This record gives sequence, C-alpha cells and structure tokens, in this order.
Amino acid sequence: MNVAKGFHQRVSLADVAARAGVSAATASRSLRGGAKVSPDTRRRVLVAARELDYVSAVDTAESGGGRQRTVAVIVPFITRWFFATAAAAAVDYLRGHGYDVLLYHLGDPDVRDRFFREMPLAGRVVGAMSLSMPLTDEHTLSLRALDLPLVSIGSSIPGSPSVGIDEVRTGRAAANHLLNLGHTRIGLIAGRPDDTRFDFTTSMGRRLGYEEALGAVGLALDPQHIVDGPHGIDGGTEAMAELLSRPTLPTAVLAEFDELAIGALWALRRSGLRAPQDVSVIGIDNHELAEFVDLTTIAQDVHRQGRIAAQMLLQLLGAETGSPSDHPVLLPTHLVLRTSTAPRHPSQTCTTPENEAPGPGE
Amino acid sequence: MNVAKGFHQRVSLADVAARAGVSAATASRSLRGGAKVSPDTRRRVLVAARELDYVSAVDTAESGGGRQRTVAVIVPFITRWFFATAAAAAVDYLRGHGYDVLLYHLGDPDVRDRFFREMPLAGRVVGAMSLSMPLTDEHTLSLRALDLPLVSIGSSIPGSPSVGIDEVRTGRAAANHLLNLGHTRIGLIAGRPDDTRFDFTTSMGRRLGYEEALGAVGLALDPQHIVDGPHGIDGGTEAMAELLSRPTLPTAVLAEFDELAIGALWALRRSGLRAPQDVSVIGIDNHELAEFVDLTTIAQDVHRQGRIAAQMLLQLLGAETGSPSDHPVLLPTHLVLRTSTAPRHPSQTCTTPENEAPGPGE
Repeated sequence: MNVAKGFHQRVSLADVAARAGVSAATASRSLRGGAKVSPDTRRRVLVAARELDYVSAVDTAESGGGRQRTVAVIVPFITRWFFATAAAAAVDYLRGHGYDVLLYHLGDPDVRDRFFREMPLAGRVVGAMSLSMPLTDEHTLSLRALDLPLVSIGSSIPGSPSVGIDEVRTGRAAANHLLNLGHTRIGLIAGRPDDTRFDFTTSMGRRLGYEEALGAVGLALDPQHIVDGPHGIDGGTEAMAELLSRPTLPTAVLAEFDELAIGALWALRRSGLRAPQDVSVIGIDNHELAEFVDLTTIAQDVHRQGRIAAQMLLQLLGAETGSPSDHPVLLPTHLVLRTSTAPRHPSQTCTTPENEAPGPGE
Repeated sequence: MNVAKGFHQRVSLADVAARAGVSAATASRSLRGGAKVSPDTRRRVLVAARELDYVSAVDTAESGGGRQRTVAVIVPFITRWFFATAAAAAVDYLRGHGYDVLLYHLGDPDVRDRFFREMPLAGRVVGAMSLSMPLTDEHTLSLRALDLPLVSIGSSIPGSPSVGIDEVRTGRAAANHLLNLGHTRIGLIAGRPDDTRFDFTTSMGRRLGYEEALGAVGLALDPQHIVDGPHGIDGGTEAMAELLSRPTLPTAVLAEFDELAIGALWALRRSGLRAPQDVSVIGIDNHELAEFVDLTTIAQDVHRQGRIAAQMLLQLLGAETGSPSDHPVLLPTHLVLRTSTAPRHPSQTCTTPENEAPGPGE
C-alpha cells in the first residue's frame, strides 16, 4: 500500500462543480450521496468527476480508490436476538453490494448521548441505518443534520424510509389470542425503557394494541396485572416475579418481547407453576429460542427487515434501482401456536376472583 | 462538512521520512501502525509528522482530521452469543478510545473466501481483530500480508497476540466433573465445522480434553457415544436425537458449547427423558441462557476476552501503553453447578450395559 497515492496536483471540487454546472456545495453533496440532490444532478456531477478523474480525499481512503463505500449501522444492543439478526442481514446485504459497514454499538445511554453530540459519522460514511434506536429529539436532529441518506428498522425517523411491523396490530393480535381462549384476566409484561428520557417506541405500540384489544371486549385494564421489566430474559423473570407477588395473578400473560416471555416462563417454573395449566404465556417476535421453550408467539421476519432496510439505503445511494417508499414498510406478522397458551380452565384458581377487574384508571 | 478540506499544497510523506531520518516505506508503515516498526521509530515518525502538520489522505477521511481511526472486527457469526458478546465488548472498548469499527460478518464460507481473496481491509483500517474464525492457511497468509496489527480471540494466528481459554483443560474439567459423579458411559456432542476444509480449532481442543480425561481413568472412547451437530441450539437437538437412535445411550453427555447442550436438553425433554435423572448434561461457556435451563457448565468470561483483545490491539497501535504478551493470554474457567448433572444412579438403565466400552479404536 502506498499512502502517498493521490498527492499529485489534483483536480479540485470547484473544477467538478464548474463542469457539471452546479455549485460547489451541490457537487459536494452529490459526491457524498446526500439526500437533497436530485438523481439527475447527482448523475451529472458523477459524470463530471469521472471525466476529470477527480478523486476526493474522502473517496481515496473510504473507497480504496472508488471501489467501495462505507455506511454506518447504529444498534442499541448487538447481543440481543432482534438486533443481531437484523444487523447481520443488513451487513451481509450491504457487503454483497460492495459497501463496508461501520458498526456503532450504543447500548449505554451515556455512550449514545456522546455519539450524537460528537456525531463521528460526518465525513466518514455515505449513509446510515438505525436499528430500533430510542432517539431523543436532539438525537434525531443530530442525525438529520448530517444530510445523509438514512433508513431505520423497527422505529421510524420522520422523513426517512423505515421498515418494521405494525406494532399496535401485533399487540392486539397477541391479546386477541388470549381473549379467544376465554381468558379475561390478562396481564402485560412490558419492556422498560433503558433511558427514562423517552419511551421505547416499539414497546409502546404493542402495549397500545393490548389495551385496545381488552377495551374492544369491554375489559377494564387492571394496573395490578401490568408490570414492566428491563429488556432481556432477566427482565422477564423480574417482571413475572413482581406479578407473582401481587394480590391476584392473571390467568394469561402477554409479554411484549419473546425474551421477556422466556424469562416469565422460567419464573413460573421456579415457583412451581406451569404454563399453560396455571398461566398461559404469549410473546411477540418468534425469537430463535421460542421453539425450545414451546412459546406461543406472534412471529415477525427480522432477517427480511434487515435486508429491506439495506435495499432502501442502497436505493437512496443510487446503488440499487427504484426508490424507497415514503411510508413505513410494514411486514406481516402471524401467530405461531405452541404449547404455552391454552383455554382458560376452571382449575386456574391461583387468585381471588373478587379482586378482579377494578374500574378503569385505577 | 467541506470535502475540499486538505486540497492545499501538502507536505509529502517523503518530507516526513526525511525529517524522521527513516525511509519512506518505514514512515508509511509507522503512520499506518504496522507491526514491524519499533516503538522508538514510530514515535520519531509521529513527531515529525506532527511538526510538519502532515495529513495523509488516509488520515483525512479515516480519522476525520486525525481525531479517530478505524479498525476491522471480523466475526463468523454475529447472531451467536459468544461472538456477539465478545464483539460488543471489543467494539465498546475501541469506541471508548476513539476508534471506529468496521464490522465484517463472514458467516458463509463463500463470503469468507471472497473476503480473504479481495481483502477489502487494505488502506481502510489500521488494525484488525479476528473472532474465533476458522481460517485456512490462505486466509491467514492474506491477513498477515496486510502487515497490520492483528489480534484474535478464541483461536490464535501464529505471530499475533491472542486471548482465549485453555480449551483442552476446559474440556477435561467438564469430563472430570461427570467422571467424579460416577459416570463411565459419557457421550460427547461436538460442534461440526461449517466448512469441511478445516477443523474448528476451538472445538478440537475441547474434544481432546474429553478424550484425555476418559483416557486418564482407563475408559475407552466409544464412537457410538460421540456425535456432532451443526453449531447452535438446533445442532444440539439434532446431535442428541442421533444419540437417542443408537443402540446404547450414555448416562452423561458433554456438549462442547452450551448452545449444543441446550438443544440436547430440549431433545431429551421431547423424548420424555429427564436431565439429570435419565441423562446428565454438561456444557461449556456459561451462555446467558444456561441459567434458565439449569445447565451445569464450565464458565468462561467472554466479555473480558473482548476487552482484553481490544486493549492488545490498542497497544499494538501505540494507543495504550505496554505490549501484548507474545504468548496466548488464557483466562481461567470454572465449573458452575446447576441441576443438569447428578451422580450416576442405578436407575439409569436406558441402555444395555453389555454393549458398553468397546475396545479402543472401534
């Protein structure tokens, strides 16, 4: 490798702009793959750059001589199934199209804040993908200020393409399954946001679906049966333990994520209770482990979400034909029946029925 | 952002080399953090570069003006616990020291081959970390030809620092636990390499430990009790199903990875058998799920391995003081007792004892 490569007297950006008949700013934006440039203009600038044999400093190092480009993938938790699966699918697809991926792992809220404050992406990537990231308004502004093509998975950033599932509808479907099995005392295990400054959008949608489904059949929400736990299996165990220490136990529980459901199943087993005989449990996700714990769940195709997000990003970058949809792309979900849910049985008497169904708002 | 930044008449690499009193090649290698440069020489070159206000094309884009640098992290399977955990720890540590991480996900053997053939790292990163990657000789040569600082986790690349556990000793410890519980018919579930051109080094060490432990007490290896399955939970299920279809069943099974052990437990449960009453099962890893399935296992600290590998890479890059060890850094492991193993009981009669212990080599 020769780091001195490209130190000869070079064609300037102004030369390229002049030849393309655009301003230097527009030429710069075109070469960086900025979102605000029309495809026509970008093409004109790229042709001019090629004709002049223009090599920008960014190109030289970033693309190893124009062969490759770099995009950022921003994930909150790479060690969790949803994020690892979506990220792997996106990374594979992007690599398959000659793009390298800078991975930003922002699990810790402080790390996340620092990232958005320092915004290390500027000048380093031509586009970015955000995975179900809890973003404050400042974070979103900071991302948008980059003026880079941006897509997201699992939560949407206004003005940018996104892919995910209909969270509310999915939460409703899970609750409806329990209602259809005759359950009326249905608990909810929600994921607790890791940062109190904002709610976790995904989780809020699922919870709303649960509330809608119960409301549609005239069931009041019982705050005694609604708990939250930190994300992950441990969080589900913690949340189910909390339910187990309250005056009445639901006969069925909806966990917003399979990891929470798996933890809940474990807590039930530890306490000598059985699913579904004592408590039915349903999750959402179809986590790779759901099959192994016989968990009934609403399945989503996370791998496909990762691939579609990568495709949309490549479309924004002009590396694939077509344009991403202006509206969030919502993939279908479906109920996967296993053995953790069953019809409500008269023997489910772990609780005192008279405590049931307090008035709304209680 | 101004992409035209740095297009003024620049100090050349030759100027830096002359001032530092070294050849241009050595100056280049020093600035790239190459492994073959002495710390003294590198310091002299860095001082000269700073005094001359030298900014290389690589620096300009790669470090956003010299503030940051980029390293590659190469993982075979980001969706598996070991790799996700080690990668997250390494990425966090590197980011914390101002280094960006290009993630290369090389799960598919063909993708892996293409990666090592095209070697997209040249000119893009200042160092690389390889996570338990099954490498052919060509792969290793290709990596070494980059002449970049290189560290590895879980398997070692000759001449480069590495961190991991003593695989043989760990396999022996797991087998010894079963022997100490009175088991003599001890099966092995091994991970099957995803690429037939080479064995998976990690797995071979654990298997060797199992063989040594049995040999040390005069037990012959019974090929009827040794099976392999693809990596992951599914693979463990498949392997245990294979064991369940053979003439005799072991009274205890050692799975080389917890994911295989978890799949094995599931297969036992599906077939109506219980662990440990019918078959004891021990794993290796202490996977985050091991607790939830009550799996006895030999624990390793994967997070710490990721952090140590990152530290060693930063040391090679001169970004942290000290030098990494010339020998592989081996972290301690320890037995975590849960309920999936128990003393051999006379009631363990799923098998016909007369089929036991054939001669060696059979």
